Amino acid sequence: MNIDRFSINQMTVKQLPLPELVAQCVRLGIPGIGLWREPVREYGVEAAAALVRDAGLAVTTLCRGGFFTNDGWEADNRAAIDEAAALGTDTLVLVSGGLPPGSRDLVGARARIADAIGSLAPYAGERGVRLAIEPLHPMYAADRCAVSTLDQALAIAERFPAGQVGVVVDTYHLWWDDRAPAAVTRAGAAGRIHSFQLADWTTPLPAGVLNGRAQLGTGTIDLPAWCELVAKAGYEGPVEVELFNDDLWSRDGVEALEETLEAYLAL
Amino acid sequence: MNIDRFSINQMTVKQLPLPELVAQCVRLGIPGIGLWREPVREYGVEAAAALVRDAGLAVTTLCRGGFFTNDGWEADNRAAIDEAAALGTDTLVLVSGGLPPGSRDLVGARARIADAIGSLAPYAGERGVRLAIEPLHPMYAADRCAVSTLDQALAIAERFPAGQVGVVVDTYHLWWDDRAPAAVTRAGAAGRIHSFQLADWTTPLPAGVLNGRAQLGTGTIDLPAWCELVAKAGYEGPVEVELFNDDLWSRDGVEALEETLEAYLAL
Repeated sequence: MNIDRFSINQMTVKQLPLPELVAQCVRLGIPGIGLWREPVREYGVEAAAALVRDAGLAVTTLCRGGFFTNDGWEADNRAAIDEAAALGTDTLVLVSGGLPPGSRDLVGARARIADAIGSLAPYAGERGVRLAIEPLHPMYAADRCAVSTLDQALAIAERFPAGQVGVVVDTYHLWWDDRAPAAVTRAGAAGRIHSFQLADWTTPLPAGVLNGRAQLGTGTIDLPAWCELVAKAGYEGPVEVELFNDDLWSRDGVEALEETLEAYLAL
Repeated sequence: MNIDRFSINQMTVKQLPLPELVAQCVRLGIPGIGLWREPVREYGVEAAAALVRDAGLAVTTLCRGGFFTNDGWEADNRAAIDEAAALGTDTLVLVSGGLPPGSRDLVGARARIADAIGSLAPYAGERGVRLAIEPLHPMYAADRCAVSTLDQALAIAERFPAGQVGVVVDTYHLWWDDRAPAAVTRAGAAGRIHSFQLADWTTPLPAGVLNGRAQLGTGTIDLPAWCELVAKAGYEGPVEVELFNDDLWSRDGVEALEETLEAYLAL
């Protein structure tokens, strides 16, 4: 891989304050960055927008809207769409939420998620923001995201124009799924791959299973094959590296960023 | 639920030595037991067979064959089939194994698993033992079982007579999968549900994600709906409760057994 389509997701090196991350991206020639709402809001949305714009960085995604099974989801998601537009990104990643407290109704939760996305799609479309439904690994179905496969995400997205709703293809979440390759091809043909994210899979998984997204090349996912699959599906957009990893976070942020870029280029 | 079809998997109360477990089953009126190879071999296969037979207990399953991506799988699985026959159970549960060390070829691992099962099926059939392919949750795809969905397990099983190869329906592994209900119906119609196992899902998952199988009724799985689904598919066999749970294991084994039975009856 070469650097042209590389994007670093902010969470991968969350120990770096935004201005330093932006400066390091410029120094290393990294063209794109994926931002998260919490650190952006801390810095100030307008200030963050100016910072990345002045540095010439593309904001490839904003993470994240979603959690549609929580109370207050609608106002929060409209705010997320506004923030995405202000940051100049065309893609808001949606982590859709799990079961409401005490519920065992997974089918109901999935219906509620689809309805919520439908009610937001026109609002997003008017602001030039595409909603990108991210299927999360089934191990998160109860507490983070009831949308567990790319087929499910696509089935929701396909109800709306591709310019309003699409999907995220994230290797960590999808690598195990024998049906995912066909879904990637279908999503690509419909112009619905709105983000492509890389992380590798290693075991044993850590407690809580949130921070085990491993450095590229260290795990069991055939990442070059995934890059080829997505390319063959017609996707030519940014390739974002998003790792949640306690070991990476415990280290010097610049070193972690350089290592991640090297691991990407080595694919 | 009533006790008539209840079976306690030995691992649920692994702190109980086999003779005590058998005695407690008799005392509580529990009709069935699922055994594991390691403790059975420690006690002696013939001695274990006599113990459960004399107590009037049905051995509902033997766990486990499989790990077909390891060297030495063939001799080990033939031994497992022989042990199942000696114990008087008609069902050997298969945990098929993950990726071989250093491999990223998930498609290849799945093909290797299907080939291995095919080579064992006649041997099992001649001994009155059915091979029951257990799809494990996708979080185990790398290191324990590359068969991740009931559809995948059925696709392998359907190549062979139902009297030789079928599937395990385990709520813990399948609850998240929107395609599982249709696969359960298909498996039931073909007489391929060879075991039905219950465990509940709670979060956060523990490190290593092996010992989080939760007590019935404490988690997010709609277990009565699963029992109904399997019944509607025509399954009338044992309902086995298999929990791997550090908290349960840390407690008095008899108390843990009684609690598990009560939780089952309360469904």
